[in-house]
Amino acid sequence: MRIGFIGLGSMGAGMAGNLIKAGHEVTVWNRSPEAAAPLAEQGAKVAATPAGAAAGVEVLHSMLANDAAVREVILHGGVLDALTQGAVHVNHATISVALARELAEVHESRGLGYVAAPVFGRPAVAAAGGLNIVAAGKPEAIAKVSALLDLLGQKVWPMGDDPVRATIVKIGGNFLIGAAIESMAEATTLTRAHGVTAKDFLEVMSSTLFAAPIYKIYGGMIAEQKYTPAGFKMSLGFKDIGLARAAAEAERVPMPFASVMHDAMLEALGAGDGDLDWAGMARIAAARAHLKD
Amino acid sequence: MRIGFIGLGSMGAGMAGNLIKAGHEVTVWNRSPEAAAPLAEQGAKVAATPAGAAAGVEVLHSMLANDAAVREVILHGGVLDALTQGAVHVNHATISVALARELAEVHESRGLGYVAAPVFGRPAVAAAGGLNIVAAGKPEAIAKVSALLDLLGQKVWPMGDDPVRATIVKIGGNFLIGAAIESMAEATTLTRAHGVTAKDFLEVMSSTLFAAPIYKIYGGMIAEQKYTPAGFKMSLGFKDIGLARAAAEAERVPMPFASVMHDAMLEALGAGDGDLDWAGMARIAAARAHLKD
Amino acid sequence: MRIGFIGLGSMGAGMAGNLIKAGHEVTVWNRSPEAAAPLAEQGAKVAATPAGAAAGVEVLHSMLANDAAVREVILHGGVLDALTQGAVHVNHATISVALARELAEVHESRGLGYVAAPVFGRPAVAAAGGLNIVAAGKPEAIAKVSALLDLLGQKVWPMGDDPVRATIVKIGGNFLIGAAIESMAEATTLTRAHGVTAKDFLEVMSSTLFAAPIYKIYGGMIAEQKYTPAGFKMSLGFKDIGLARAAAEAERVPMPFASVMHDAMLEALGAGDGDLDWAGMARIAAARAHLKD
Amino acid sequence: MRIGFIGLGSMGAGMAGNLIKAGHEVTVWNRSPEAAAPLAEQGAKVAATPAGAAAGVEVLHSMLANDAAVREVILHGGVLDALTQGAVHVNHATISVALARELAEVHESRGLGYVAAPVFGRPAVAAAGGLNIVAAGKPEAIAKVSALLDLLGQKVWPMGDDPVRATIVKIGGNFLIGAAIESMAEATTLTRAHGVTAKDFLEVMSSTLFAAPIYKIYGGMIAEQKYTPAGFKMSLGFKDIGLARAAAEAERVPMPFASVMHDAMLEALGAGDGDLDWAGMARIAAARAHLKD
Repeated sequence: MRIGFIGLGSMGAGMAGNLIKAGHEVTVWNRSPEAAAPLAEQGAKVAATPAGAAAGVEVLHSMLANDAAVREVILHGGVLDALTQGAVHVNHATISVALARELAEVHESRGLGYVAAPVFGRPAVAAAGGLNIVAAGKPEAIAKVSALLDLLGQKVWPMGDDPVRATIVKIGGNFLIGAAIESMAEATTLTRAHGVTAKDFLEVMSSTLFAAPIYKIYGGMIAEQKYTPAGFKMSLGFKDIGLARAAAEAERVPMPFASVMHDAMLEALGAGDGDLDWAGMARIAAARAHLKD
Repeated sequence: MRIGFIGLGSMGAGMAGNLIKAGHEVTVWNRSPEAAAPLAEQGAKVAATPAGAAAGVEVLHSMLANDAAVREVILHGGVLDALTQGAVHVNHATISVALARELAEVHESRGLGYVAAPVFGRPAVAAAGGLNIVAAGKPEAIAKVSALLDLLGQKVWPMGDDPVRATIVKIGGNFLIGAAIESMAEATTLTRAHGVTAKDFLEVMSSTLFAAPIYKIYGGMIAEQKYTPAGFKMSLGFKDIGLARAAAEAERVPMPFASVMHDAMLEALGAGDGDLDWAGMARIAAARAHLKD
Repeated sequence: MRIGFIGLGSMGAGMAGNLIKAGHEVTVWNRSPEAAAPLAEQGAKVAATPAGAAAGVEVLHSMLANDAAVREVILHGGVLDALTQGAVHVNHATISVALARELAEVHESRGLGYVAAPVFGRPAVAAAGGLNIVAAGKPEAIAKVSALLDLLGQKVWPMGDDPVRATIVKIGGNFLIGAAIESMAEATTLTRAHGVTAKDFLEVMSSTLFAAPIYKIYGGMIAEQKYTPAGFKMSLGFKDIGLARAAAEAERVPMPFASVMHDAMLEALGAGDGDLDWAGMARIAAARAHLKD
Repeated sequence: MRIGFIGLGSMGAGMAGNLIKAGHEVTVWNRSPEAAAPLAEQGAKVAATPAGAAAGVEVLHSMLANDAAVREVILHGGVLDALTQGAVHVNHATISVALARELAEVHESRGLGYVAAPVFGRPAVAAAGGLNIVAAGKPEAIAKVSALLDLLGQKVWPMGDDPVRATIVKIGGNFLIGAAIESMAEATTLTRAHGVTAKDFLEVMSSTLFAAPIYKIYGGMIAEQKYTPAGFKMSLGFKDIGLARAAAEAERVPMPFASVMHDAMLEALGAGDGDLDWAGMARIAAARAHLKD
């Protein structure tokens, strides 16, 4: 199949690679062109512009950083004009509910298919084709891309027609991760103040009741008090909790845990911890209790 | 070994049964005597008083409901006078840090061994000998009871000399469970407000990043909006979050998530939801967003 | 002096009237033209466009509803082009810190004076010339308009050169009002639950330690549980707390009280209370405690 | 009238002095006897025990520090046995709702009158007879002591029969003060981060909308960032917010502002600020925003 792929960051590069490996004819574009080189070696064509990656493809994937990048590249970068009638755009980015709704409408009005397909997983998982993909869009659009989604992920979780639904699952999921971090931050501050290390406490919890990837990965960082290199930066976590809060505000949903996290992350950002992994929220909880690192 | 067992509620009955099955000579006591009958059939002697269950035993286990019960039965019920010098008391109850410290001192001053050994697991798990047990106490006391703990649990997590340390791990663990519930409560309220059912959302999460017992069990209740019969009642959860908050206050540990949970559970108790499972916190989150059940 | 006045809502109409009464030559504009009629009777010229009210004046006052209105009317409505070099724009609106900064820069770059002069006071106070005005801007701009500000207010509080400084005082002040309301909401819920009416409690407080206009006015509404007609609508209060939270976020200032208020007001808006006075936050506090109105 | 007065701290000494000045026959007792000396000079008899101050009096006033002191001195110090049938005990202390209820019942059962009469005001105000007194008790008991209350305060606010009602008004009032402090703490942190000093901001507010004693007194401390000598210590404020939270918990009243204050004060106490005035909560707000003092 003729495929375009826009956005070759640490996630997108691995995903595009999996499409190439499966034999598809892939044209890629990335803002900083050097990221495209390894994919060219794998057999991709490299476009000079976003529109170039969209021209003439049957399916266009994009994996951009945030609302601003999606607006600039997709909405204002000529991509929609370049897509041929009937082509499907699969958007993997984590974006706001408001933008998700706008994108769905814009594609619809131009006769383009649109699938929201945000992903859960880190770069290594993306490269291995092991992502969990939440997908929503019109049935005919989904049908056209489902074989491709199967190449990118270990499992595709269908969420129905409305792209907003996949978006809110991704946003809700990231909220749930942040809340697990703050929970561990507070719990370990409590146990440390009573003589039990974060490591001793979290080893019990993440081996038993909480034996799940999130508690193991972030719990491990908190146990070691080691927040670099960041798997997911505090500044990005802050942005994602902001997406949850904006979505909550739009539908009048009070989320007091999100408010607490917002305040804790503001304190972390003010401390200069924006480039730490967001597990570093544990530093704020400990500082408030006047524990030494 | 000659063993006493005080407190035959839904957890204690199964635990005492496992000690009997292993061939130990067990004398039991329970406030309401009918709970002792099934154990008598399994071979236990039944004492008429707490002191009767403590007299002459090498190891005394107790599994009582809360601080008040422990104070009344153990500290003021003649148990300590009945225990012979060198006997070890293994306390499985979830109690306050303050009482844990007091119990350690009282036993020490009387030449009695003391092991704090709170457990994680539900009644069926207790009956099957599959508990996770967090144990702390003097090495010689631990050594004396460790074969017994192995009968009760699938794993014993040693936490060192100081009984307070096992207690705070249990308290911290219950806080972590409550926080997971409130997290799911808020996240599903958010997704429901945007058209995704709690079931659809939680199925993704608890099958992937959060594939752990806590998210499956409580997430299942939230997905079904079914909070009876209670696995763990709201009123008990409220008590346990109170233990976390008291322990936090004693060491000057701010815990904003615990504060949020306290306020949400007060609202639930005021609504008459005290006998629901504490997963019912999700009803409060939904009500605040004016979602219909 | 030749003066323009844009925005003749309940506040602006009274303010413009005071300028006319003092003998100034005032040209007014309002989106819905009927609001201009009473001022025409007082002697104002009525412009057909915002630019018409700005053309040729020495000083332009504006009192618009929010950021969006200021952007549309002032930045995109031809006003800046219409102002002559050296004219001063006095902006009385409560706007975001970000827009305050942008406006200061835009005026500066065009050789126009700019004074941020948000006001505290209700419509009746505005009509009587009794406002408290917080003013910031370049000294020469302030000098040019200070006699006019004296006509509008009982007192002008100078806040220095930077228009942002007057804006943040207004935003901080509105936050303080909202926090006083939520404080009274929680306190009266507590006393009511113990048998003391809101009226009995607030009468003591607002006659003694809290004998200030805010506690008397909003406390009076809470005592009577009467939130219509609104002096200041919940929906506007929500917007203003949003301005505080945005300003806080920009400078990494955690404001947990603002977070609590945000969540309470979301709950109120979801209940359909957006048109009540924002003292109606007391209904949410009472509902959470399951008190009958 | 023959009067006893127990508790001669900074408040009680001035109050007892006013009763002496009015010509009453006053017997005083204080734990540390040196505090009684100045009152002896004014004409008081000094008792050697609490019971000695209660024996044979018509009215006994007490002004003790907290629940523990009231329990020890009044309930377990022989005072109730010493009082003659029909005597009235006027309790000025700020105590818990639970103890207020217990005291009312104990006095009733012994045929003693009981009036809860907590006060608002600082030591200088107490000495000048300018307190605001909130009083509740049976009409006949109130009638007996109302002339005395008039000597102690500028105004007596009657709250009906039930002593709990006066107690909750005092507790609610102290909550309102604490909330005003935290509000100013957050608001001034916000304005400081945008270039406006706490002094400049609070001068506007406490001269206009918030022209009330609480905002002037505590606002003054926050403006100067000067929290010693303490008018009311953080550690005492923490205790009083604890009384509010306990009263709230008893009646299932969620109070999220109280939760925020609890967490902020814990952070302050952990920082070693327990002896500062509780206006020092502003230091915590500023520290979270990484502002320099």
